[in-house]
Amino acid sequence: MSDKPLSVHYINYLSLDKILDAQTPISKEKGGEAHEEMLFIIIHQTYELWFKQILHELNSAITLFEADRIDESSIGIVVGRMDRVNTILTTLVGQIDILETMSSLDFLDFRDYLSPASGFQSHQFRKIELILGLKIENRHQFGGCPYHSQFDGEHKKEVLALEENNSLFSLVEKWLERIPFLKMDGFDFIKKYEQSVNEMLQKEINNIQTADLTDQDRDLRLKMIDQNRKYFQRVLSKREHDKAMLDGETRLSYKATMSALLINLYRDEPILHSPYQFLRSLVELDHKISTWRFRHVQMVEKMLGLKIGTGGSSGQGYLKQTVDKHKFFTDLANISTLMISRSYLPSLPKITKDQLGYNYSK
Amino acid sequence: MSDKPLSVHYINYLSLDKILDAQTPISKEKGGEAHEEMLFIIIHQTYELWFKQILHELNSAITLFEADRIDESSIGIVVGRMDRVNTILTTLVGQIDILETMSSLDFLDFRDYLSPASGFQSHQFRKIELILGLKIENRHQFGGCPYHSQFDGEHKKEVLALEENNSLFSLVEKWLERIPFLKMDGFDFIKKYEQSVNEMLQKEINNIQTADLTDQDRDLRLKMIDQNRKYFQRVLSKREHDKAMLDGETRLSYKATMSALLINLYRDEPILHSPYQFLRSLVELDHKISTWRFRHVQMVEKMLGLKIGTGGSSGQGYLKQTVDKHKFFTDLANISTLMISRSYLPSLPKITKDQLGYNYSK
Amino acid sequence: MSDKPLSVHYINYLSLDKILDAQTPISKEKGGEAHEEMLFIIIHQTYELWFKQILHELNSAITLFEADRIDESSIGIVVGRMDRVNTILTTLVGQIDILETMSSLDFLDFRDYLSPASGFQSHQFRKIELILGLKIENRHQFGGCPYHSQFDGEHKKEVLALEENNSLFSLVEKWLERIPFLKMDGFDFIKKYEQSVNEMLQKEINNIQTADLTDQDRDLRLKMIDQNRKYFQRVLSKREHDKAMLDGETRLSYKATMSALLINLYRDEPILHSPYQFLRSLVELDHKISTWRFRHVQMVEKMLGLKIGTGGSSGQGYLKQTVDKHKFFTDLANISTLMISRSYLPSLPKITKDQLGYNYSK
Amino acid sequence: MSDKPLSVHYINYLSLDKILDAQTPISKEKGGEAHEEMLFIIIHQTYELWFKQILHELNSAITLFEADRIDESSIGIVVGRMDRVNTILTTLVGQIDILETMSSLDFLDFRDYLSPASGFQSHQFRKIELILGLKIENRHQFGGCPYHSQFDGEHKKEVLALEENNSLFSLVEKWLERIPFLKMDGFDFIKKYEQSVNEMLQKEINNIQTADLTDQDRDLRLKMIDQNRKYFQRVLSKREHDKAMLDGETRLSYKATMSALLINLYRDEPILHSPYQFLRSLVELDHKISTWRFRHVQMVEKMLGLKIGTGGSSGQGYLKQTVDKHKFFTDLANISTLMISRSYLPSLPKITKDQLGYNYSK
Repeated sequence: MSDKPLSVHYINYLSLDKILDAQTPISKEKGGEAHEEMLFIIIHQTYELWFKQILHELNSAITLFEADRIDESSIGIVVGRMDRVNTILTTLVGQIDILETMSSLDFLDFRDYLSPASGFQSHQFRKIELILGLKIENRHQFGGCPYHSQFDGEHKKEVLALEENNSLFSLVEKWLERIPFLKMDGFDFIKKYEQSVNEMLQKEINNIQTADLTDQDRDLRLKMIDQNRKYFQRVLSKREHDKAMLDGETRLSYKATMSALLINLYRDEPILHSPYQFLRSLVELDHKISTWRFRHVQMVEKMLGLKIGTGGSSGQGYLKQTVDKHKFFTDLANISTLMISRSYLPSLPKITKDQLGYNYSK
Repeated sequence: MSDKPLSVHYINYLSLDKILDAQTPISKEKGGEAHEEMLFIIIHQTYELWFKQILHELNSAITLFEADRIDESSIGIVVGRMDRVNTILTTLVGQIDILETMSSLDFLDFRDYLSPASGFQSHQFRKIELILGLKIENRHQFGGCPYHSQFDGEHKKEVLALEENNSLFSLVEKWLERIPFLKMDGFDFIKKYEQSVNEMLQKEINNIQTADLTDQDRDLRLKMIDQNRKYFQRVLSKREHDKAMLDGETRLSYKATMSALLINLYRDEPILHSPYQFLRSLVELDHKISTWRFRHVQMVEKMLGLKIGTGGSSGQGYLKQTVDKHKFFTDLANISTLMISRSYLPSLPKITKDQLGYNYSK
Repeated sequence: MSDKPLSVHYINYLSLDKILDAQTPISKEKGGEAHEEMLFIIIHQTYELWFKQILHELNSAITLFEADRIDESSIGIVVGRMDRVNTILTTLVGQIDILETMSSLDFLDFRDYLSPASGFQSHQFRKIELILGLKIENRHQFGGCPYHSQFDGEHKKEVLALEENNSLFSLVEKWLERIPFLKMDGFDFIKKYEQSVNEMLQKEINNIQTADLTDQDRDLRLKMIDQNRKYFQRVLSKREHDKAMLDGETRLSYKATMSALLINLYRDEPILHSPYQFLRSLVELDHKISTWRFRHVQMVEKMLGLKIGTGGSSGQGYLKQTVDKHKFFTDLANISTLMISRSYLPSLPKITKDQLGYNYSK
Repeated sequence: MSDKPLSVHYINYLSLDKILDAQTPISKEKGGEAHEEMLFIIIHQTYELWFKQILHELNSAITLFEADRIDESSIGIVVGRMDRVNTILTTLVGQIDILETMSSLDFLDFRDYLSPASGFQSHQFRKIELILGLKIENRHQFGGCPYHSQFDGEHKKEVLALEENNSLFSLVEKWLERIPFLKMDGFDFIKKYEQSVNEMLQKEINNIQTADLTDQDRDLRLKMIDQNRKYFQRVLSKREHDKAMLDGETRLSYKATMSALLINLYRDEPILHSPYQFLRSLVELDHKISTWRFRHVQMVEKMLGLKIGTGGSSGQGYLKQTVDKHKFFTDLANISTLMISRSYLPSLPKITKDQLGYNYSK
């Protein structure tokens, strides 16, 4: 027995007895251990550990956004945590390279034993999707059963509860609706912005009409501008926007969309700096998850070609569909369509500008 | 005047006078330099430099494969060069992060000046696609004109010539057709392989019928096996294969496909080690180019949303189509569908095995 | 002749005629082109292009910091640009992998022709070091001559001028000295901080004395705390700090150091968020340049072992020295030594807190 | 109770109950959970999972090299596994970025609770060092006690046993000594190589003497060549080599060094292709572990500055020492010093060449 004083040892602190004792290759039980099964187990375990960390960060963001009053230092903190989630996702994408060192032939040494286990059965990944705001009706359905039929007991309950709870999407939407910038000191953002857009489009038309272009080119470009005009009109009209929401073409409310646009346009104002970084981090998150799905499809293609997946899934088919379809913040990415050059940006009245900024050098 | 002896200076060796004098932001000429235009120019120039290097490597591979007799040391050399191309592509994908530090708002400060210049006009990238084996009839067409209408003079001539020349795809196909392994010393690979597949499928059926499954599950699985059987039959039949080629479902010839399968299955044999690495590097190349296109789409989404591209292209639409469609070596990736576990692998006669391997330890 | 209207073509916009015509392998002139020389030229050209971009960003930061009055939106802009520089450096580190696909044997096919050209002769890299704040007296000297003896004419003049100009280091130091937070509304930061440190150290001592430790362990820990106390005392004393500056142990002035400490401790306050991100980006920059040098040393080791470099330099020796010695912002990294847990952080008076923050939700 | 048939579920297969229940932040027990402690725990757990995988691969390499007879297909397999280890290490280096999203201030919220736990106490990392071949006498010692005093019971026993067992270093050395290429069919490699080196050096001297150089430059270069000559002589002399081994300047035996040189020089010969890839992968492994240590030092610098580590270690000091000192295959990296250009490479007699290669195209 050790007479050392009780103190924290690395091995205990990290529960390494549990962690390093949790790998039980089935091929070994069946009598012939396939060398590569260990890799298959361990890489999935690291994925699940990182999913737990992502949930830890997302849940903390949910808590901060559920507060009655969200001050700028909360946004600063969330920016840091979303940045962490995105850095984790960079690692998750990158480490697919490790799994790709296992070849198709290696995988076949133990693949049959796994059936019907499948990545579809990761409750943590479903939770991530739910917390971000993926609704069951927006999922690409696979096979005849809803995704949660994969789960039992506690896991099922948790997953179903999340369908009802606030998602990051809905909380961000509410926050955008609440921030008080659309009408400040008599500055009516939407009206001013609309004027600027019209001015910009008119100038583009003038440029095209005086440019040395072939008739065909001129017509093509004028047509493009007309399309742009319609796009702007549709987006700026609350009625059209509400219709697009009903049709499932857009999810973010009119008011939230306008606030997001304002933040993107006036992001150089100090007070809008963190909100801008936050909105950008959500688009980044969306893209990184898509990239992970995309690389996942490639990995499956290398490993299985067109073979059927272990859970009875057509390896690539389902995954391919989710790359584009299971996105959360497309509406925020599409704000870019509405951006106009700084030279057309409506200038803020001085009083507003002073409120949005501060100076600290003498 | 310098009285130093003539010798190589870094600045001259790299022609830095040319390289560093080749950035002329249009916004500067127009009177108001947009800070971010420099980045836009420089990143595209690095892309073009790397494209030149990729062409240098691919052309050397073409030369080696055009030889009458291709020995294994050539394959070894090409493996090294394809590995280099893939490492370059990793950098090309990664450096999209740099461009993404430029925001939509920054881009709009100079975007209008660029029209109608566009990445479509990169003759080097078209050459890469052509050398790898993309035929004009397999391209996703954009707008009303063929892709080469973007080019004039020498560039157009070069591009059109490449449509006629040997591509890496066609040379690899010929090489696969020539290698003499399908029938060795009375070992008829295709026949043996077919027997093994049947044996494997029968065993799977037996397993399912004795397993403790619900009726629904059992039927589902038996159906899957039946699909697999049909897939194998179709692929192994030369007639079916030739038909699939006519229908545009596959491009690689029957004989080449069988050789590629053999290389993948017997890759542990020393003589097949380099050929296997080579085939794998081609699939890798395909995946990396797709990933680059995919990330490119995301970058454009961040920058422009749904805006029309500078060359009149709908920013994302065309690019999105090419991610999947402009692939070169899908048939090699699909070999994975035909892989069978090592335990079913037909064993080679000793004489064949000796021919394929060597030992050098005492 | 083309009757198309004059408009911007990608090839012209990027001066691709110059860029793609600037590769002239010497081995080709000498009669036997070494396949790998092209890679050697092109990778160095991409490095130089990126150096130009880094200089573009750093110079813009210099300009913003030379202003009489630096407002927070400038800091926000600089944060974005430093982030870009760091993303570029990530690519520069990563693309060493490409050069490492060239082996020692490949390099020897043309290495002899290059002598005495050498990376030491990159005037742009010297400019980056100078703009960041590396002084000639802090350089690891190599051979008998000062580093600028490698340059002639215009390049030499530019480099020497930069020795005299404002560096980012000196401008950041001045900015830190000017920001008015050390004494706000009767809140004397240094005094308060010193009290907190003493309180913290005393609590640590109490903990150790009551803990169940062996005598040896207890003594060791008490000794460590005593060292810490001395460290804090030395750093907080202006006189000791000035002495350390004279001795070359530290470069950043006392007042600037204290402001940097304050920013790091109170970074959750909205007004200090961007300044904190900026300081962190400088440490990040330092680390990335060091990592680049470190990987560079490894690459040279692989390529040349202990061979003498082309410019007469002992391949690894010089580079190894610069990894640690040519750092710019070590004093900012060392601020971490002075950090204390949030629980000991002196709380700000309400009036100060209001000045530093803002709220915008209803 | 579920009436489903027993079958493998993802959650059970991966023992997720254990894995996801193994995070117990001490700060939570102490009453105030520090948000960032979860990250600290999880990232270390992923490191340990990957260490387990690295050990799995290294142990399999040890087993293959302990065989009486090592054929080329074993080398091919080991190449693939070393490549996997290197890909894992790339992820381990990259994911330091995740930990760096935690700032110094965040870390201090729970750091005090950890003492004296420390990364020094990772038995798996020690095992990796031991299996690769780090002997206790070559370690940078830290504090007054040997490294294994950190371990108890089973862990201590395992670690001590590994000090006695075959390491990968020693097995590779034996393998290199056994391969029969140094004298083939009357081709005496060392003698031939020595002649070529002399020829090469003489030609370099001639070139320098006829070149248009200043006297100073000429002398410098002749001196360099003289140094090279001495280096070659020392290395090629068995007596000098044995002396250098006794003095601890080199570890790899004379015969193994010569075989490694031969493999590097004649790597284009098919039979030497895999051995070359294997030797290169060992140097790569060394470099990646060094890079990981190097980035680790930077991370600690950001987090703690010059603070004392949790285990009583001076954060950076120990780690910095190990970056260079705890390398395993420096002797293989230094082979590059002995490389000579292909134009000087002694040509193999035809009979030898035929034995080393094979052709398979008609």
